[in-house]
Formats: sequence, structure tokens, C-alpha cells
Amino acid sequence: MAGQSSSAAVAAPDLPENPQELAELTAKVMFDNDPASQALGLAIEHVAPGEARMSMTVRRDMLNGHQTCHGGFIFALADSTFAFACNSRNAATVASGCTIDYLAPGYEGDILTADAKEYSLAGRTGVYDVQVTNQDGKRIAIFRGRSYRIKGQVVGD
Amino acid sequence: MAGQSSSAAVAAPDLPENPQELAELTAKVMFDNDPASQALGLAIEHVAPGEARMSMTVRRDMLNGHQTCHGGFIFALADSTFAFACNSRNAATVASGCTIDYLAPGYEGDILTADAKEYSLAGRTGVYDVQVTNQDGKRIAIFRGRSYRIKGQVVGD
Amino acid sequence: MAGQSSSAAVAAPDLPENPQELAELTAKVMFDNDPASQALGLAIEHVAPGEARMSMTVRRDMLNGHQTCHGGFIFALADSTFAFACNSRNAATVASGCTIDYLAPGYEGDILTADAKEYSLAGRTGVYDVQVTNQDGKRIAIFRGRSYRIKGQVVGD
Amino acid sequence: MAGQSSSAAVAAPDLPENPQELAELTAKVMFDNDPASQALGLAIEHVAPGEARMSMTVRRDMLNGHQTCHGGFIFALADSTFAFACNSRNAATVASGCTIDYLAPGYEGDILTADAKEYSLAGRTGVYDVQVTNQDGKRIAIFRGRSYRIKGQVVGD
Repeated sequence: MAGQSSSAAVAAPDLPENPQELAELTAKVMFDNDPASQALGLAIEHVAPGEARMSMTVRRDMLNGHQTCHGGFIFALADSTFAFACNSRNAATVASGCTIDYLAPGYEGDILTADAKEYSLAGRTGVYDVQVTNQDGKRIAIFRGRSYRIKGQVVGD
Repeated sequence: MAGQSSSAAVAAPDLPENPQELAELTAKVMFDNDPASQALGLAIEHVAPGEARMSMTVRRDMLNGHQTCHGGFIFALADSTFAFACNSRNAATVASGCTIDYLAPGYEGDILTADAKEYSLAGRTGVYDVQVTNQDGKRIAIFRGRSYRIKGQVVGD
Repeated sequence: MAGQSSSAAVAAPDLPENPQELAELTAKVMFDNDPASQALGLAIEHVAPGEARMSMTVRRDMLNGHQTCHGGFIFALADSTFAFACNSRNAATVASGCTIDYLAPGYEGDILTADAKEYSLAGRTGVYDVQVTNQDGKRIAIFRGRSYRIKGQVVGD
Repeated sequence: MAGQSSSAAVAAPDLPENPQELAELTAKVMFDNDPASQALGLAIEHVAPGEARMSMTVRRDMLNGHQTCHGGFIFALADSTFAFACNSRNAATVASGCTIDYLAPGYEGDILTADAKEYSLAGRTGVYDVQVTNQDGKRIAIFRGRSYRIKGQVVGD
């Protein structure tokens, strides 16, 4: 993320040592630099080392021809939440591959919440599980992401 | 898709018998009823029985914190193209699960093209492969979708 | 499973009504009719409605060229355990697709245990998660299976 | 593969420069050191840089409770073929994750053939597609594997 003015403003010596504070700072900087998550209307509900929870309201422009939430937007919510979880230790990390299974449709106005948990992290690669539920707690989709750590940091590079 | 005025206007007796004409009519009706594909700026480049090709220009509001195209939007392009391919025979069909592997990043202004081909169709279930390339022919992602045919038709129900 | 003498011997009127007893009977009949699970040396550790746990000792003839357990055998253990979980209510069910992520190698003599849990079951389709660990509790692989219920019963058809 | 006597016998200076000859040598050494592929009765039909084709006859001890080929053995055939393809340039490579979709059952006595092709190779990671067909050319399964190159060589280390 080198060259982004907002991240450049946070120098490495100023990074918090507390893992929870670092996760929160990383999430804030990531979100401020992430036009897609902003345009999707995502809200960060929770972040911690290896974890993230984000929510999204299903808008009319997210509906497909069945008048249910387009799978791409359910995926985008899960994928962003996965990204926030796997970058939460401030080591720049990208997705290498993902799988999603759809369980129930989302409708206009639904508030979907994605919960990402780190299942495994070894060397440069990790596996994360993300569960997407609606406002009634009904399971909408389940997503698994494989992460790959690249060079650099989210904040402080 | 029952109850949608635009599709209700096309009565079953008027459906074309020619598979290619039916695929084109189905795609047109689907797209007209698909706010998400419209909002993503997708363009239908080609449709045929079991096939579809769609393109999308990567906009600034599709960028993630790495300033590359958010995986959710690459997925959404692939997923829509998959949907147009698997509904191309006018039998209402939904996705049951999908897998995506990212191969190279997309950048702002890139024109991404997704090509969906039917790999297998047996009974109610099918498998489709979607390849996403950029304007230079570089492979950006590969997607596999499993489809499940539900009751009803896209056009004429 | 029609036509198999061992299952034909258990008539429908004799099936236990208690779900746990039915799960145990189903597992027993399945295993007795499953040459592959027998040849792999699988042992059923636990079965309950929507759940199964099976173990396998890594033999020399399961090693690949890296002298670690061939991924196909780790997969086979997970896949069998998934099958026992998704057939545990005595409704004949098959796998439609599966994903596996390898986390750590297995070695000759390791005792691998697979734990399958039903994540979702709706209509004819289900999603199951299977975790494979070794004798030290180390995670070896994670597997996700999608099931599809077909006609018939495991026992009593 | 360090420390294996059969591979140690082939010194680096003796490695063929021709990619096809190197692929054939690598496959031979891998197979000689792979008890699992031998025990499965796999036969190498073809190998080339980034490609492999292997066959397997479905034996009685590969049948599941439905008296069809256990998914684990179809997977093992695909997975071995993937391994031979992704190691064909003699750079030691392992699987990080795989997906399989079952299309039709295999029966006792069927000769299943797996064809692996390299779809993408960039840096340390690759994506391979493997198609499994039976003796009548019927598609039995489709498999996608992600590879990760580790240190070392198959032959000559």
C-alpha cells in the first residue's frame, strides 16, 4: 500500500504494540482507502486479530433478475470481511482463492452480516471461514477464503 | 420470475423455437430485470445456448485498499455471466455454489471480459466454467459455478 | 441401495424411531456395504444425526513421493466421514461437490481423525464441514462437502 | 525429496535439458517413490511440461456403499495426475487446495482416465484443471487444484 497518503501519514514507530489496537487502526486505514467497501455501504461491526464482522444493507441496485440479492454482492461482503480479518495483524495479505455456498436468498432491505474467523495460519498462507446471516440470524451463505501474505504492511509502509 | 411485468408481457405461445433466438430473448429479459448487472455497468457481448460473454469496466468505486479491483466485483462479473449462460435455455436456474481463483489484479479503467461455457448439464444440475480476462487478454480469474434448475421459466411464466 | 442383501434384511417396519439408534443402524449397514471404507481401514468413532467421526491410520501404501500421506487418502477419509454424516437420517444422499484445503502433512503411522458436522440442510441439499486432525490434535485438512438427497433409503429399501 | 536414495542417484549435472525428457524423467522418479499411486494401480499414459494423463481401473475395494467408485478414489486419481503435471518441470511443488465436482458415477471395472492441464502458473502458485472420464469418454468428475512451489527439486536434490 506504499504511496497512499493516508497510510504514509502513520509512521512505523507510531504503530500500537497492542494487537487489538493495531487491528483497529489497520481496519480504519484499510476502510479509508477502500472505495469498493465504501460504495457497497459496508459497516465494520467488529475487528480483532484474525477476526472481522461487517454488515451491508441489500439495496435495490444489488438485486438480480430473481429480485434477490445478486450473489456477487453477498460474495463481496464476505470477501471484504475476509480481507479485514486476514490483514488485521498489519501484514499485507491478499486472497488467492475463495469458495462460496449459497444457503438462502437475501431480499431488498435485508441487513446481512458477515463474520470472518481465522481457521488456520501457517507461514504465508491462511484459511478463513466467513458466515453470512441476515437480520433474523438466518444463514444466507458460507464462504471459505485462502489468504497469501505478500511483502509490506497495511499501515506504516 | 412470476409477477414481473416485463416478462409477463411475453406470453409462452410467442416464445421463439430457435434456441439461439430464445437465448437472446432470455438474456434481454433477464438483463432488463437485473438492477445489479445494470448498476455494475455490465454489457452482454454474446449469448448462445449454454454460453454467455459479458464485459465490465473497472471503476474507481470498485477498487479495494490495494487500489486494485475488489475481488467481489470480479466475482460479480463472473457470477452474472454464469447466470446468463445457465438460464440461456429459459429454464429458471440458480447458483448453488461457486469457486474463484484470482490470477492477476485488475486496475481502474481495465475492461474485464467474462466468458462462460457449460461444462456439464445433467438433470437439474450443471457445472459452468467462467474465465475472466482483461483488455490485453491476460487472465485475471477463473471461476467455476454449480447450477441448480428450479421450477419455472425466465420468460413466459 | 436396492438389491443389497444385507440392507434388504432390515425391513422398514423394523427401523428404529429414535434418531440416534437410526443413525447407528444406518452407519453399520453402510459400513458393511462399503468395501472402500473397509479397505482404507476406517473406524467409526461416533455417529449421530447429521454427524460422524471416523479415524484412519496412515499406512505405507498411502504415502506419496514426498513420503507424506497422499492427499487422495486424506480426502477419502474426509469424504467417507461426510457420507456417513449426511446419510445418518437414513435418506439416501450423495456428494455433489467437495473442497479440501491442506494445512499440514500426515506421516506414516499417524492416526488421522475426521469430524463431520452438518452446517446446513434445506430441501434436498446440505453443506457439511469436516475437520481432519492427527493424534496430537494438529489440523491436517479442512473439507467442505455439498450433499444432494436422492430417492430411497440407506436401510429398509 | 532430499535423502531418497533413488532420486539421489540422479545427479544434477546429468539432468536432461530438453523439457520433455526432463518431464519424463521426473515422472518416472516420482512414480518409483510414490507408494500410494502404485497401490492405486495408476498408470502414467502421458506426461509433458505442465501436463499429465493417468489411468486407474476401478477395483472392488474402491466401491462405496452405493456400489459405485468411492469419491476419494476418483479424487486420488485426479490429485495424483495434478501432482505429476505440476512437478513436471522438476521444481518440487505441492497442492494447497483442491475442488472436485462429481458428474457421473464410476463402476467396478471402469477404466478412469484423468487429464491434467496447467491453466495458470505465476510465481510460486499455479492452477490446474483435471478432467476424469471413463472408457466411453463419459465425464465422471472435474477437479481444480492450486499448487504451491516449495524449495528443492524432484530429481537431483
